[in-house]
Amino acid sequence: MAKDFSYEILEEIAVLSENAKGWRKELNIVSWNERPSKFDLRDWGPDHEKMGKGITLSNEEFEALKKAVTNM
Amino acid sequence: MAKDFSYEILEEIAVLSENAKGWRKELNIVSWNERPSKFDLRDWGPDHEKMGKGITLSNEEFEALKKAVTNM
Repeated sequence: MAKDFSYEILEEIAVLSENAKGWRKELNIVSWNERPSKFDLRDWGPDHEKMGKGITLSNEEFEALKKAVTNM
Repeated sequence: MAKDFSYEILEEIAVLSENAKGWRKELNIVSWNERPSKFDLRDWGPDHEKMGKGITLSNEEFEALKKAVTNM
């Protein structure tokens, strides 16, 4: 993975799962490259030293997600 | 992207956003390679002909996500 980017985990909201190797699927609030923070759903290695694939959500997208899941 | 996989969108739960080019961020229930279906949060091109990055969630992970967001 290219290393010419930065990230800061501003808030750890929830750990959705953890596998035998210590990788966790997490919902966090993350700032990428010092840009405004977004909601971030992603796999992380132990101690957040490695990151896996994931998806970011804007505030509007997160609100839409929240609305959808609370109606299920 | 490799084409030696199959997918079937079993249920379209919610469209979280749509950009000017018609790409949508969607929450769906998807079966990948004819395996048991999972929740899937992903960017899709118009008519689901192209897919972008995304993340899948097991039932347990989705329940954990639901619990987290409903408490926010």
